[in-house]
Amino acid sequence: MTTTLDQHTIPRGFRFAAGTAGIKASGRPDVAIIEAPLGANAAAMFTRNRVAAAPVVVGRNHLAAARGKLRAIVVNAGNANCATGESGMRAAEKTCAQLAVLLGTTPENILPSSTGIIGVPLPLDKLIASLPGVLASARDDAVLDVAHAIMTTDTRPKIASAVVRATGKTASVMGVAKGAGMIHPDMATMLVYILTDAVASPSMLRRVLRAAVAQSFNCISIDGDTSTNDTAVLMASGASQWRASDDEKQFAAAVTSVCMSLAAQIVADGEGVKHRVTLRVEGAANTAAAARIARTVAQSLLVKTAWAGADPNWGRMLAAAGRAGVVIDPHTVDIWIAGQKVCGHGTAVAFDEKQAHRDMSAPEYEIRIRVGNGPGASRILTADLTAEYVHINADYST
Amino acid sequence: MTTTLDQHTIPRGFRFAAGTAGIKASGRPDVAIIEAPLGANAAAMFTRNRVAAAPVVVGRNHLAAARGKLRAIVVNAGNANCATGESGMRAAEKTCAQLAVLLGTTPENILPSSTGIIGVPLPLDKLIASLPGVLASARDDAVLDVAHAIMTTDTRPKIASAVVRATGKTASVMGVAKGAGMIHPDMATMLVYILTDAVASPSMLRRVLRAAVAQSFNCISIDGDTSTNDTAVLMASGASQWRASDDEKQFAAAVTSVCMSLAAQIVADGEGVKHRVTLRVEGAANTAAAARIARTVAQSLLVKTAWAGADPNWGRMLAAAGRAGVVIDPHTVDIWIAGQKVCGHGTAVAFDEKQAHRDMSAPEYEIRIRVGNGPGASRILTADLTAEYVHINADYST
Repeated sequence: MTTTLDQHTIPRGFRFAAGTAGIKASGRPDVAIIEAPLGANAAAMFTRNRVAAAPVVVGRNHLAAARGKLRAIVVNAGNANCATGESGMRAAEKTCAQLAVLLGTTPENILPSSTGIIGVPLPLDKLIASLPGVLASARDDAVLDVAHAIMTTDTRPKIASAVVRATGKTASVMGVAKGAGMIHPDMATMLVYILTDAVASPSMLRRVLRAAVAQSFNCISIDGDTSTNDTAVLMASGASQWRASDDEKQFAAAVTSVCMSLAAQIVADGEGVKHRVTLRVEGAANTAAAARIARTVAQSLLVKTAWAGADPNWGRMLAAAGRAGVVIDPHTVDIWIAGQKVCGHGTAVAFDEKQAHRDMSAPEYEIRIRVGNGPGASRILTADLTAEYVHINADYST
Repeated sequence: MTTTLDQHTIPRGFRFAAGTAGIKASGRPDVAIIEAPLGANAAAMFTRNRVAAAPVVVGRNHLAAARGKLRAIVVNAGNANCATGESGMRAAEKTCAQLAVLLGTTPENILPSSTGIIGVPLPLDKLIASLPGVLASARDDAVLDVAHAIMTTDTRPKIASAVVRATGKTASVMGVAKGAGMIHPDMATMLVYILTDAVASPSMLRRVLRAAVAQSFNCISIDGDTSTNDTAVLMASGASQWRASDDEKQFAAAVTSVCMSLAAQIVADGEGVKHRVTLRVEGAANTAAAARIARTVAQSLLVKTAWAGADPNWGRMLAAAGRAGVVIDPHTVDIWIAGQKVCGHGTAVAFDEKQAHRDMSAPEYEIRIRVGNGPGASRILTADLTAEYVHINADYST
C-alpha cells in the first residue's frame, strides 16, 4: 500500500521539510520541520505521564509564553529526549533557539517534539547541524516527507484530511501522525500534527482539539503503555480566510474526522498487529464504568492473545470484564463477535464457532459486550497481541 | 527437574487420590480428591473477580454452611465450570453431593474446585462416574498425584512444606498448587491447598491464611489477568495434636513460608516465563502508592518484553512508573538492576551495560525503583513476557 497525496488537499500557509541528522541508527530521515511562514494560531495537548519528556515540557512552556502563536514545529525521531535531565531540557531549548535564528523569530514560537529511545542523551550537535539543510528543502507540498521522517517502528506514514466549505470558500484540515507502540488511552508515543488554513483563535483550537482527541486518540489502545512524549498540535494558518467561527460545528467535525482516521491508522499499524478490534461496551451504570470495562478487556493479555489466534474465547473477555473493578452482574452479560451472539446472560449460547473464527480472521471486526441495562457506553479501537509484538519490543535497544 | 517428596513431611490426617475422568483432552489425570477422614477445620479465600465460577460460589456457601468444617476437596482440571449458568451451579452441587454419598458425609462438608477453559459445560457425567475409582486409589502419601492432576498449562507440580515444633511435638504444613497463566495480584487461576495436622480453629485459620496470602499470592503477577476460579484453602486435621494456639506466630510463619514458596514456583512456571523478577518499589508516599507503581511496572508490556530480551531499558520502567496514576517527581527516581544503579534522579547514569545484560540473562534477578523519600514500599514477584506466552495463549482452544 503506497500512501499518496492524491485525495488530499494540503492546507495553505505551511511549508514542510524533512531530512537526515543521523539520529536514527538506520540512516533514514529523522528530522522534520513544519513551518507557518506568516505564523499560526495553535493549541496542543501533551502526555499525562508524570514522566514527561523535555520537548513536552519545553513545548508546553513555549505555547503558553507565546499565547497560542506558533511559527514552526521541529521534530526528531530516533531519540525521545526523555529522562535526560537538565541537559535534555537545554537540548530542547537550544534546538528551538537555533531554528528561531534561522527563521528570524523567537524560540517561544517554536514547538519541539521528539520520539524514540528513552534515557539516551539527544545528539544535539547532529540535530542542530542538520537544521539549515532541512530548512532549505522546505516545500508547500512535502507533507509525505514529514510523515516519513517522524516514523519510528511505524511501517507506513499516516496522513488524513478533510475539507470544510461555506459561502464559496473552502478550507482544509490535514493531519500527519506517527504511532506504532506504546499506544493507550490518554495518548501514546503518538505525535500528531493537524494543520488547517481556516481562521481560528487559540481558544477555539483548544476546544476543538480537546473534543477531537477525546473521541479519537483517547479511544485507542495497543499495549496499555502511555508514552512520555505524546503530543497533538492543531495549527491554523488562516490562509484560506475561511472563518471557523462562522461554522465551528463543521470545523470541529472536520478536525475530529481527521483525528479518527489517524487514530485508526495508528492502530492498524500497531506493532505486530494482525487484527484491529472495535470494542463496544454498553449497558454499564455510566460512561466511566463502561470505559473502565472496555479498557480492561482491551488490555487483557489473555483476550489479546485469543484475538491473535482468531479464537472466539468469549470466556476470557467475560473474565476480564469481571475484574475491571466495576460492579456488574455476570448473569446480565451478553457478548457478540462480529454481530454473532456468543454469550447470553453470562453463559454459553449455541453459535457457529467456525463462522466466528472466520470473522475473527479478518483484519478488522467488532466485538460488543453488554454488561447490563444501564445508560453507560464506551467504544475503544484496539488490536491483538502477537508474538511479533514481543519480538519487536524484546529487541529494541540491544 | 523431578519433584519428589523426599524433603517433605506429609501432614497426618489426610488421604490423597487422583485419577482420570476424561475432561482434559490430553487424557492426563484430571481429578483429585483431598480427604480428611476424621474431618478438618478450614478457611478459604476466593477470587475477587465479579465473574466467579460455579465451584467458587458453591465452595463459599458450603464452607459458611458447615461453619468452617471440611471433609474433602474435589478438584477437576480441564474445565473451569465458569460462565456455565444455572446448570454449572447444579453440576458443582451434584459433584459435592455424589462425593458426600461416597464418603458418608453431607455436601456442605465438600469444597469443589475447577480449573480450565471458561464457558464450556462441565462434563458432569464423566466427573461423577470417575469418583468411586479415584477414591479407591486414596493413599496417605499420594500428594504428588494430586499435584499432577490439578495441573493445566503448568509444566511442573508445585509442592512446599514446613514443620513447626514445640514441647516435643511437631506438626507439618504442606501445600500443593497449580498456577501458570492468568496470575495477578488478588490471586489468579491459582488453586492452592494447604494442609496441616496442627490443631487450629476456623477463625485462626482464616486469620493466618489471609495474612499469608497477602504476602505471597497477592504479590505475584504474570499477565495481569485475575481468574474466575482462584481458590486458596487451609485445612487443619489436628492429627498431630500440636496446638497452633500455643504458638500462633510460628504456625503463621510456617503457613506463610509454604505460600511464598508456592507463589515463587507459580511465577517460575508461568506460561513462557524465562526470567523471574523481584520488583521492589520504595520511597512512595505510602504502601498503596508503592503497590500501584509496582503493579503498573510489572504489567507494562514494554517493560516485560524488555525483560524478555534481557534489555536494561530502564526508560521503559521509568515511563511505566510515571503513568501509574500516582504523583511522583521523575527527578527523584532511582533505578537499580541486579544491584547496579542504572538511573539516578530520573536520568541516565553511567553503568556497565554488558554486566546489566548478563545479570538480566539470569533466570532470576532483582529490580529496585526508588521513587522518592516516602515510607511506602512494595514488592512484587513477576516475570518477563515472551513470544512463547503468546503462542501458548493464542492456541488455547482452537
